[in-house]
Amino acid sequence: MSLVGLFEELNGLSRFELGGKGFGLVQMTAMGLPVPPGMIIQTEACKQYYRQGGKMPEGLLDDVRKKLAMLEAKTGKRFGDPSNPLLLSVRSGAPYSMPGMMDTILNLGMNDKVAEGLVKLTDDPRFVYDAYRRLIQMFGRIAMGVKGERFERELEAVKHRLGVKSDVEIPASEMRKLVEEFKKIVREETGREFPQDPWEQLRMAVEAVFKSWNNPRAVEYRRYYKISEELGTAVNIQTMVFGNLGENSGSGVGFTRNPATGERRLYGEYLPKAQGEDVVAGIRTPLPIEKMSPELYRQLEDVAEKLERHFKDMQDFEFTVENGKLYMLQTRNGKRTAQAAVKIAVDMVHEGLITPEEAILRIDPLELNQLLHRRLHPDIKVNPIAKGLNASPGAATGVVVFDTDEAAERGSRGEKVILVRPETTPEDIKGIIAAQGVLTSRGGMTSHAAVVARGMGKPAVVGCESIRINMDEGYFKTAEGLTVKHGDVITIDGGSGQVFLGEVPTVEPELTGELNELLAIADRYRRLGVRANADTPQAAEKARALGAEGIGLCRTERMFNAPDRLPIVREMIMAADDEGRRKALEKLLPFQVKDFMEIFTAMRDLPVTVRLLDLPLHEFLPPPDQILKEMLELVNKPGKEAELAEKQALLRKVQILHEHNPMLGHRGCRLAVTHPEIYVMQVRAILTAAIEVRRRIGSTAKIQIMLPLVSERNELAYLRSIIDDTARKVFEELGEEIDYKVGTMIETPRAAITAPEIADVADFFSFGTNDLTQTTFGFSRDDVEAKFMANYLTKKILPSNPFETLDVKGVGFLVKHATSEGKKRNPRLEVGICGEHGGDPASIKFFNESGLDYVSASPYRVPIARLAAAQAALEVREKIPITI
Amino acid sequence: MSLVGLFEELNGLSRFELGGKGFGLVQMTAMGLPVPPGMIIQTEACKQYYRQGGKMPEGLLDDVRKKLAMLEAKTGKRFGDPSNPLLLSVRSGAPYSMPGMMDTILNLGMNDKVAEGLVKLTDDPRFVYDAYRRLIQMFGRIAMGVKGERFERELEAVKHRLGVKSDVEIPASEMRKLVEEFKKIVREETGREFPQDPWEQLRMAVEAVFKSWNNPRAVEYRRYYKISEELGTAVNIQTMVFGNLGENSGSGVGFTRNPATGERRLYGEYLPKAQGEDVVAGIRTPLPIEKMSPELYRQLEDVAEKLERHFKDMQDFEFTVENGKLYMLQTRNGKRTAQAAVKIAVDMVHEGLITPEEAILRIDPLELNQLLHRRLHPDIKVNPIAKGLNASPGAATGVVVFDTDEAAERGSRGEKVILVRPETTPEDIKGIIAAQGVLTSRGGMTSHAAVVARGMGKPAVVGCESIRINMDEGYFKTAEGLTVKHGDVITIDGGSGQVFLGEVPTVEPELTGELNELLAIADRYRRLGVRANADTPQAAEKARALGAEGIGLCRTERMFNAPDRLPIVREMIMAADDEGRRKALEKLLPFQVKDFMEIFTAMRDLPVTVRLLDLPLHEFLPPPDQILKEMLELVNKPGKEAELAEKQALLRKVQILHEHNPMLGHRGCRLAVTHPEIYVMQVRAILTAAIEVRRRIGSTAKIQIMLPLVSERNELAYLRSIIDDTARKVFEELGEEIDYKVGTMIETPRAAITAPEIADVADFFSFGTNDLTQTTFGFSRDDVEAKFMANYLTKKILPSNPFETLDVKGVGFLVKHATSEGKKRNPRLEVGICGEHGGDPASIKFFNESGLDYVSASPYRVPIARLAAAQAALEVREKIPITI
Repeated sequence: MSLVGLFEELNGLSRFELGGKGFGLVQMTAMGLPVPPGMIIQTEACKQYYRQGGKMPEGLLDDVRKKLAMLEAKTGKRFGDPSNPLLLSVRSGAPYSMPGMMDTILNLGMNDKVAEGLVKLTDDPRFVYDAYRRLIQMFGRIAMGVKGERFERELEAVKHRLGVKSDVEIPASEMRKLVEEFKKIVREETGREFPQDPWEQLRMAVEAVFKSWNNPRAVEYRRYYKISEELGTAVNIQTMVFGNLGENSGSGVGFTRNPATGERRLYGEYLPKAQGEDVVAGIRTPLPIEKMSPELYRQLEDVAEKLERHFKDMQDFEFTVENGKLYMLQTRNGKRTAQAAVKIAVDMVHEGLITPEEAILRIDPLELNQLLHRRLHPDIKVNPIAKGLNASPGAATGVVVFDTDEAAERGSRGEKVILVRPETTPEDIKGIIAAQGVLTSRGGMTSHAAVVARGMGKPAVVGCESIRINMDEGYFKTAEGLTVKHGDVITIDGGSGQVFLGEVPTVEPELTGELNELLAIADRYRRLGVRANADTPQAAEKARALGAEGIGLCRTERMFNAPDRLPIVREMIMAADDEGRRKALEKLLPFQVKDFMEIFTAMRDLPVTVRLLDLPLHEFLPPPDQILKEMLELVNKPGKEAELAEKQALLRKVQILHEHNPMLGHRGCRLAVTHPEIYVMQVRAILTAAIEVRRRIGSTAKIQIMLPLVSERNELAYLRSIIDDTARKVFEELGEEIDYKVGTMIETPRAAITAPEIADVADFFSFGTNDLTQTTFGFSRDDVEAKFMANYLTKKILPSNPFETLDVKGVGFLVKHATSEGKKRNPRLEVGICGEHGGDPASIKFFNESGLDYVSASPYRVPIARLAAAQAALEVREKIPITI
Repeated sequence: MSLVGLFEELNGLSRFELGGKGFGLVQMTAMGLPVPPGMIIQTEACKQYYRQGGKMPEGLLDDVRKKLAMLEAKTGKRFGDPSNPLLLSVRSGAPYSMPGMMDTILNLGMNDKVAEGLVKLTDDPRFVYDAYRRLIQMFGRIAMGVKGERFERELEAVKHRLGVKSDVEIPASEMRKLVEEFKKIVREETGREFPQDPWEQLRMAVEAVFKSWNNPRAVEYRRYYKISEELGTAVNIQTMVFGNLGENSGSGVGFTRNPATGERRLYGEYLPKAQGEDVVAGIRTPLPIEKMSPELYRQLEDVAEKLERHFKDMQDFEFTVENGKLYMLQTRNGKRTAQAAVKIAVDMVHEGLITPEEAILRIDPLELNQLLHRRLHPDIKVNPIAKGLNASPGAATGVVVFDTDEAAERGSRGEKVILVRPETTPEDIKGIIAAQGVLTSRGGMTSHAAVVARGMGKPAVVGCESIRINMDEGYFKTAEGLTVKHGDVITIDGGSGQVFLGEVPTVEPELTGELNELLAIADRYRRLGVRANADTPQAAEKARALGAEGIGLCRTERMFNAPDRLPIVREMIMAADDEGRRKALEKLLPFQVKDFMEIFTAMRDLPVTVRLLDLPLHEFLPPPDQILKEMLELVNKPGKEAELAEKQALLRKVQILHEHNPMLGHRGCRLAVTHPEIYVMQVRAILTAAIEVRRRIGSTAKIQIMLPLVSERNELAYLRSIIDDTARKVFEELGEEIDYKVGTMIETPRAAITAPEIADVADFFSFGTNDLTQTTFGFSRDDVEAKFMANYLTKKILPSNPFETLDVKGVGFLVKHATSEGKKRNPRLEVGICGEHGGDPASIKFFNESGLDYVSASPYRVPIARLAAAQAALEVREKIPITI
């Protein structure tokens, strides 16, 4: 079967066969919208190209010729015929939109002869040679590998020489010269002539599309978005229409709703006398779509309504007006901010366009991150130093960096940077990934920087034309003449488009109306409970406000190493005997009772899972270097002998406690088996606090006491008996009792394997998937991520970082085994997960499928988890296979 | 049903019901041998005692009374009747012999009145009051908790005052006084009178037996020998016969064969005018059994023959002669040296007493350790400083320590000590466990020290009467007047009984004739292959001589950190780029080719599994402290700037390579994924060496290349392709090919879980159970064994150290899963194990059951593994349940 077809021949094929762009063109053609005729080479051809090691599929070009003949018949023009030439656009089109791949070659079919012919036909040599130089520029860069900068520099030089600002001001004669200059550049850079044969142009353009599937930026993008390498791209070959033909022409992009806010109103930009690429590249700042002629605007509104009714989603479309006639060049589901995504989904439910289930499934839970971004503190009034377009919401602070590589490098070291560029290109993806936010001086809401930043949920201010960037000397100047240098700190607010000097205080986000509504819908569908990991009363309050149904992990380390506790903790560690240890612990008790009371008050009526001390003792002592340094200062100082001796004892203790592999050492419940008195104190504090809170406010949290690092049933059994003893004593002293559960983290492979035995003595399990991943792989996260994880991902040894997305094959095997076997043995066993994976949507699907009862995630991941859990439940219901 | 019965009533019950001692008495009674009549309280009574929290089972004492009435009827004597008193012995008797438990109370039923009556009856007041004081002494110590020393000191004081050497020389009047003194000691120490009521004596004695089951020494012994806590002890109550009645009386112990050599000849010791306890305690040195009257000797030979025919094993028996009449007091399977065990088993097969299968099953494989003990270098002639009895073979060197606690403490720190005592008691068990060997100045071949040391396979010289030990001042003197002080180094040879000053060179053991025969029998039955872990040609030769069928683990670390290689390895690590690394590796290549050629020559025709580099690079660099110290010495030294800079670079590298948890870090195949050139060099060396050896001697080893620390199929697939590429290049260069396999260690849980996937790209698996245990538990062995393993064993959190005996529940689950799933996917997959568990018999049974193909152990564990593998195969055949 032929892999090439005209738009009207392909109705019924999917976006996997046609690519996203082609799918839209075919659909629009079928809907009767005005689409310039064209053909599509299906993605299968690209797959064959790679399967054959980079060879064109046999017969493919013959099929293209056949279809082209049909296009010629349809349009009455002929490809390469100077007397009535057919010009083509060639575009890539992958199943998922992928900035970073080859985009577009326009005006294909132009050559010296055709140009001459067209001048005769149109009598507009400026237009003709502008179109020709654009072809050489795009074709040279994309199909022949010439660096784009050389063309850009030449164009700038001409404008400079002529003293004009914009391309449109370059006269025909200069355009003609430019064509010759561009051909010379191609010759110099490649050693080959720009091909005059239109068929050769077409062949090379098609192959360039295939090759662009695997260019480094595209590969990086797919990795970031976890898009399969196997999909391949289609090629769209379409007859040209010209937005740059004159005053009555232009190009534009539009959204059927506002992609930043979700508001239900046609939204877009229009650039008169321009081809589509000019709009997207952000080279001139376009007009709002409302400024178009009322007739065209009305036509567009009509198109928009049809598109939404057909696709049942907000559309992002491109159009060109040629001599007053509207042509639709593309439509696709529009990228949008998370805020818009949520509003659109909820609105469309109200409008009856989609079902609540569809609304739930439509939103990528990770996108909610954007809504949960920080924003500027509302009470703080600072004057901005500049204002641009509010392209992607959220406030971000960082040092100004102009170079993408530098941004990537500093960002990967954990530094907070703001990437500042005149505009961004696909080459800048890695800098954007690493930056806190992006600021550009050019481009609109649909410019590269804006689209990419929104996609990643990074704050971005674009088109901030009031600043002038000097890349070479590393500074930008504001309208007021303020100079901001490389390395200075700025804050951007992508919600308002404002730029501030220095760090501006920000506040944490809250759930907005539509998000609340969406999550309420999600809560109706999900089976998994959602709790939060929270160690402080503040975090607990926040978690509750974000919808957490309890605390799944309350770490107690902070209660030991807060500054007012640490001296006492050290006293305990240094104690010579049990008695000394107990005395020090006695002093810690009131602190911890107070801590727990605050948390239990915040979480009253909900479960709070308190994990008893997990850290090894040496974590509470200063590092040996520091002690040594302090000792050096005391040596031979009269009157300091006692202090010196004390430091010496401390150093000795540090040395005794030193471990070769602390991750696998004397910590967690192991420490408690040796020194049960620490847990005894903690349990006293927990139960005392719970009872005291109930006395004061009439209700309290549901207490769950959790032991870390269990690998053997007897550890839990032994400590549980000590906990129960302690509880009995506390209840006797206080004269009242309270329910509590005792359970365990499952964070060693052995705990997972022997889960049935452990389930005999546990009320609940909670998977510590961070440590479980470490022990299952034998990976020390600290070392592995620093030393070789990147290499493993590059070499495709692992499909993703298992500390971010649960490793289903290995760790997942243990999770499933422990859950099903544990529950088989103890049907009342409650099973949750409190590792970082608890907030990862792909992992949440797996936990749902594995029969867990709840996930617990950091407070700001709670909304994400609620939505992901609902999606997981819906996918199970609809038997959608889980891919992770 | 009554738990008490007379010997003749209990035939048919097992040793689990009767205890070992009782079982022997019942059997001998049934065989018609002369056994003094008595009764047994079954072990069930002891279990009930503990189940009821230490309360006598109801009705038990009534049952004892009933049976005692029958004994009275049988003997015509009455318990507590001064006119014709019945005296009893009360002994513990667990299913397995357990030194450290209560042993014996003799003469029970004696009191002031009975003593007077007996004097009248026997007209031998010395005998009577000697018997009485013995009762008080034993009863006071065992049933009333008086320290034995007080009685001992009193007895010594009397002998000193009288100027006599032995108890027998103490006249009646003094014995009578001693009785009063002993009663006073009891009163002073306990605040209670020695009970005059015989029934009270009996009740207390029975309870003392029950209690002794759980005394700390018994618990320690059971833990060491892995005897279940649940078995309980029986109580043997028997009518007294007296070996101390006069010249015509005496007591002795005998073995049906020589327990040290296995020679088939009655062997034993006899102490005239003594009760049994005198012989065992080694207080006087007894006569060889051959010195008894010919008539009695003949009777004993006859008994011995009957016993062996009945029990089909070498027997250890106790007897007493009362006025010329022989009484058998005990028989049991005799403890023996491993040498004797092997000879006896093989001889008995030849004699037709047992089958080859029985011979295999009879010997504890771990006992073979004894035969594989070092012995003195045969060419070295040193004069001994003393000579004692050759109680337990093997040569051992260590510092002289007199105190058991000190020996235990220093031994546990890894120091080599020789425990030197006048004699040992059950209190000394922990010192013997920790010592390299034992030297005593008193006692015979059946003394406590001799029996215990043999049981543990520790070298021991006992009864070395020529030395005089001064415990208080911490030295001993030899006959020649040489003083050996606490802390001096001595060497003992338990095979010859010789003691040497200083360290005497020793040689490694070889397989003797009978052991070779036994192992040849074992080889007929076992299914598992047995290979050795060997890194050097010497170890390989040794392993082959000990029966290894290949090398299951040849570590290559030594080939990197030998002194002539280390500078080159550091050059490689410090290299700035791939090129520099490759150059350094080029230099290492010839060294490694030579290493491998030697090993492959030694193992020609057998498989050699070479594990490629496993250690992280920082292991090859000096520790930072050392570099810092060296840097300090170079600072401000003119002309040393370059050297200082070099050290600085080294320090930087060490800091870069530093890892938080090196066990889980950048090592093994992970390092190779980053720097494949290291493995490329190793593979070149291996294949070049293999081909070169074949060229030289016509055959070579079967090459198996093994990758460490794999946790994901892709790691192996990636490196395997590099190995195969390298092999192709080597074969091309050398113009010939050789077979090789590529496989992987399974030492992370994830490797075990994903075994089927890994099996797709592996020719073999080898379980690295050391690391697999670490990662499955989350235990860093270095830290865990130092910090809390002892505590875990004491608190019974774990039944045994999982680094010694495989943890079947956790690690074993993974081993079974990986083996069965791996073989299901790849039926040609070869599966072995090369962790330390490969030489542990209990673990070997599990590996056999799990379907592994071979085990690999250190060379001296190879014979043990061969025997254990045969036992495992037989037990599977006979469906003997495996307990581990």
